[in-house]
Formats: sequence, C-alpha cells, structure tokens
Amino acid sequence: MNKEITIYDIAKVVGLSPTTVSRALSNHPRVKENTREKILNTAKNMGYQSNIFASSLRKKRSKSIGVIIPKLNSPFQSSVLAGMEEIATQAGYNLIISQSTESLEKEVSNANTMFNSRVDGLLVSKAGTTDNIEHFAPFFKKQIPVLFFDRVPEDNNCTGVVINNTQAIYDATSHLIKEGCKRIVHVLGNLKINVYSDRLKGYKYALLDHGLAFKEENVITNDLGEESGDRIVEKILKLKPRPDGLLVSNDACAASCLMALKKKKISVPEDIAIVGFNNDLISRMVEPNLSTINYPSYHMGEVAMKNLINHLDDEHQEILQKTNTITLRHELIIRGSSKR
Amino acid sequence: MNKEITIYDIAKVVGLSPTTVSRALSNHPRVKENTREKILNTAKNMGYQSNIFASSLRKKRSKSIGVIIPKLNSPFQSSVLAGMEEIATQAGYNLIISQSTESLEKEVSNANTMFNSRVDGLLVSKAGTTDNIEHFAPFFKKQIPVLFFDRVPEDNNCTGVVINNTQAIYDATSHLIKEGCKRIVHVLGNLKINVYSDRLKGYKYALLDHGLAFKEENVITNDLGEESGDRIVEKILKLKPRPDGLLVSNDACAASCLMALKKKKISVPEDIAIVGFNNDLISRMVEPNLSTINYPSYHMGEVAMKNLINHLDDEHQEILQKTNTITLRHELIIRGSSKR
Repeated sequence: MNKEITIYDIAKVVGLSPTTVSRALSNHPRVKENTREKILNTAKNMGYQSNIFASSLRKKRSKSIGVIIPKLNSPFQSSVLAGMEEIATQAGYNLIISQSTESLEKEVSNANTMFNSRVDGLLVSKAGTTDNIEHFAPFFKKQIPVLFFDRVPEDNNCTGVVINNTQAIYDATSHLIKEGCKRIVHVLGNLKINVYSDRLKGYKYALLDHGLAFKEENVITNDLGEESGDRIVEKILKLKPRPDGLLVSNDACAASCLMALKKKKISVPEDIAIVGFNNDLISRMVEPNLSTINYPSYHMGEVAMKNLINHLDDEHQEILQKTNTITLRHELIIRGSSKR
Repeated sequence: MNKEITIYDIAKVVGLSPTTVSRALSNHPRVKENTREKILNTAKNMGYQSNIFASSLRKKRSKSIGVIIPKLNSPFQSSVLAGMEEIATQAGYNLIISQSTESLEKEVSNANTMFNSRVDGLLVSKAGTTDNIEHFAPFFKKQIPVLFFDRVPEDNNCTGVVINNTQAIYDATSHLIKEGCKRIVHVLGNLKINVYSDRLKGYKYALLDHGLAFKEENVITNDLGEESGDRIVEKILKLKPRPDGLLVSNDACAASCLMALKKKKISVPEDIAIVGFNNDLISRMVEPNLSTINYPSYHMGEVAMKNLINHLDDEHQEILQKTNTITLRHELIIRGSSKR
C-alpha cells in the first residue's frame, strides 16, 4: 500500500501552513475561496483520503447504519433496501448490510459485527428462528437506536415499522368469503414471526365474523418457497371436502400453487380462488393475475431509515423512544385469481 | 451516549492488569483459558466494544468491502449480493452497499464515499451512463483493489467477473433460427454497457453464420423495465413483415412482452417465439414458460468476493493483477416459449 497522504504533505506542496490546509479541508469560513479551491484540488490530485475514521473516533459517529435482514435475494427485502439506501445516501450515511439467512445464530453474529463496527444505528427484520432479542442488548445499553421493520419483536420497548398484517388478511379472507368461498386454506410462514401470527389472527377473525368455523387442518405453515406449490397443493387435495379458497403469504409461493393447481386441471378462480401477498411483479405476470395485498416495501425502507436518521440528528432523541409502532397503509388488490 | 468502556475499566473490575485484559481480548496465547473466559465475560457484561476503528487505523484495514451496483431491487443484483455477503461474512468482512441508480453522477459520489470510508476493496457493476472510470482513479493510485462484475469497463487494466454475453446470445439466436425464425428482434439495454454491446455482437454473428441479414430496425434498446412489454410489442407489430422471433435481455421484460403479445392474440411460440435472459423465477411462472439463458448470479457474487478477499489476504497480491477476466458458465435453457 502507498504511503498515506497527510495534511503536512499537502501543506508542503501548496506552500501554506498545515493549519490552513486542515481548515480548508473542513470548510472553515476563515479560508478564502480561491485558497480553499487550490488546496482541495491539490489534495485530490495527491490522493488524500479525508480521515473519516479518525474524525469518527472524535465525534463518536461512524456515519454508517447497519441493516440485518433475513434474506438479501427476496423481491420484498431488496425493495425495502433500495428505499433505505436512497434516504441514507441523501443524509450522508453508509449502509452496512448483512443477512441472517433465517438463522438466529447468524443473526447473533451479525449483531455482534455491527456492534463492533460501531454503526450509529441498526435496522432489523428478524430471522424466522429468533425468539428473543438479547443479542441486541449491547445496543440498548449503549443507547444505539435499533429500529425493527416488517418482522418485529413482541417486546413493547422496541419501535417497529409494520403494516397491519391482521387487517390485511382479514380483508383478503372477507373478500374470498364474499366471492362464495366456504373452505379457505391459509398458507403462511413460521408462526414465531409476528407477521404470520398476526395474519393468522386476521384469518380467524374474518371466519368468525362471517359465521364460518376455524379448522386447524386448513392452516399450512411452510417456508413459502418459490417451488413449494406442488407440495402445498398435494396437501390441499387430501382435505375433504376440497377447499375452494387459498390465501398464501407471498406472491411467489401463491404463483407456484397456481401452477401446481393448473397442472392438476383445477380451475382458478372457479374451483379454487387464490389471494397472494406483497404485490410483487410475479402477481401481475401469471394467468390469471393474482389478487394480492399491496405491501409498500420501498416506502417501508424509506420510512424506517428516515425515522432512524431523524432520531440520530435529534439532540433530544425523544421521538423514537416514545413511538411504539409506525404502521403503513396496505391495500387489497382484486384480480382474476379470486374474482368469480 | 454512555461512557465508553475501556480495558482499564475491565481491569479494575476483574482485578487484573490492563495488559492481561488487552492480551485476553486479542486472544494472546500467554493468557490462561479460564482467565481469558472471565475477562471476556466481564467485557461482554460491561458492554465493551472492541475497538475495530482504532485497530483498523493501526493495521490500515477497515475489514469492510464496498459494493456499488446499478440497482438494489433487481432479482439479478440481489442474488449477486446474497452470494457476496455469504463469502464476506465467512471471511470476517462487512459489506458497505450503495446503488448508483444507473446514474454516473451518483456512481462518482458513491465511489468517493467508499474511498473516504476506507474500504479494503471495491466491487463494482457500472451504471448505464458510465463511460469512463476516472472516479476510481484514487483507488488505483492507492492500490485498493477494484473488481468489476457483470458490467465491466473496456479498460484492459481492470479485472472483471463476467459471463460470455456474446456466446450466450449467439446460442439463443442460433436456437431461434433452428426453430424456424427468420426475422428475429433483439431487445436490449444501453449499448454503452459491455453486457449489451457484447450481446448485440452475438446476435449479429449468429445471423451472419446462418445466412440471415442484419437489419438495424430489428434492434430495440430500452430500459428493459418490467412494464415495457406494451411499448415494445407496439414497435414490433409495426415492422413489415412481422417478426417471428424475440430475444429479450432480461426475463421480467420478456415476460412483459409475452403478456402484451397474448393481449393482441398473437400466439407464442407459434407466431412469435421468445427467449429471455437470466433464468429468474418469473421465467418459470409465465405461460408458456420462457426459454432463457441461465445467468449464475449467486455464483458470480461468490466468485467476485472470493477473488477480492484472496487478493487482500495474499501478501504478494499478484493473482488479481495478472487476471483480466474471470468468465463463468452460462447455459441456454429451452422451454415452451421458443420450442415449436
């Protein structure tokens, strides 16, 4: 590695004092405009790196924000990240991103790395197997703000950015019932995750409010994988009488179920009506188009990051501590897969 | 913010010398196992943050790697990122990720931020409007390795991880010709990007080798957006005689074209055969399933990161400097959209 360029080296080249150089580089008002320009140009040509590390140590700010998500390669999560990046860059923060790959063990190690990297704040969407948040205790202790999004812990002291998952599935279930469905199967992920336990509530409430009985056998939990349609449809077709409605907690998995049903010559929506979740691209590309819940993922990224940065910039740091939950708007979008 | 915990504070609590504490925290072999454990536990309970910043300043290593991509929310890019994150985490590096949103101006600013954040290395996939790489000069000057992937610059001194785009489209074009297509339209992105200029070559070579004439009007460049099918199909249907083959540079856009064609009652593959690119989930979900080129995106992320880290760990640092291009295998996958 080359020798590090210092302000002393720059001072020698421009023939000015190190103090003037230092002031010019930090935009001190006492330095004249043309002097500043000369110094900045020289610094640039010499390959000077402004010492963010050293200046961060003094200010105790790293100007970086950590993000821990379950999975980088998911349309939902990457859209959230894009929204976060937009806001962070505007505010001069770097994003340090890691994925827990749905493992508590990896999430613990991610949190540890983020802590030692001295992020100014942390944004987290929990792994599927995470049933406690002890590994974030060092952050809480040091008053480094931790904001959860989408998958948030039960703990009432944490702030979370979410949608109303219960209401969203309540809306979807009610819609299916209105379309004449009487035996609705709900496919969802790990019930340890608030997202899915809340949705199950919405499903139960809607059945209750419409006078239909809840049956345990109509709830299928799985990994919601892109290729899980065949397995899910096989389970459904064993149920007697055959279900006539299907509520799936993400669009990729719903599309996969749709493919599997069509392979079995079962008509959608006539025999079985389907509603997905997220409003991913795929919901508009399969035939019939999937009814779904619009989940404002990009907007969730923006809102979470904006709130975290506002908190960091706010000397009083009160807003976030008094906020429990920020709930974004969802919307039921009715398309061919459920419109009879 | 709370007071920073130092090794002196820990030393006081455990009743040992600061030297012993320091040694224990850096896993020095002279510290006995049970002493080390006691110190580590105390450090953890007190909320001690190992001083990566200070130790990075000494070692001139930040243990972070910068990644600049055109767009976070793309199935291709997020799969590449997932591969990178996997390898980086294993090797104890953080990822700092930013997106250029296809703008040279933003890419310049991203590069500048990465430089001042003192990343140990940089992985870049160029923005669409980037026609020079001057903004990476400070990295080259400081011998901070910059590795390009997917979208690489023309500059022969840079190392890039790519697939053979020319051969991939040559294969796809030849396949369409073999299926009887005589007027093949090629839809691709900004021709300033190597990915697309290379693909155009493959298209031309295949036409030439099969005795078909190349016509400028059969090449459509656009943003390959998920919703651009209607516009593209409108253009195609104005061409006389009507094209009978369609080669689209990503699967989402190809699927959108397929939808638009079906709306116009044009049969796929009978009237117009389609081949996409990437082998994204969507290619297996639309009907008919899309023929496509399998682009090993996750593997590309792994390979790029592995090579960068090997270079950083290698005292001689020769491997990467002598490597111009690392080419991964692609594969033509033939499905219903082009099999007549």
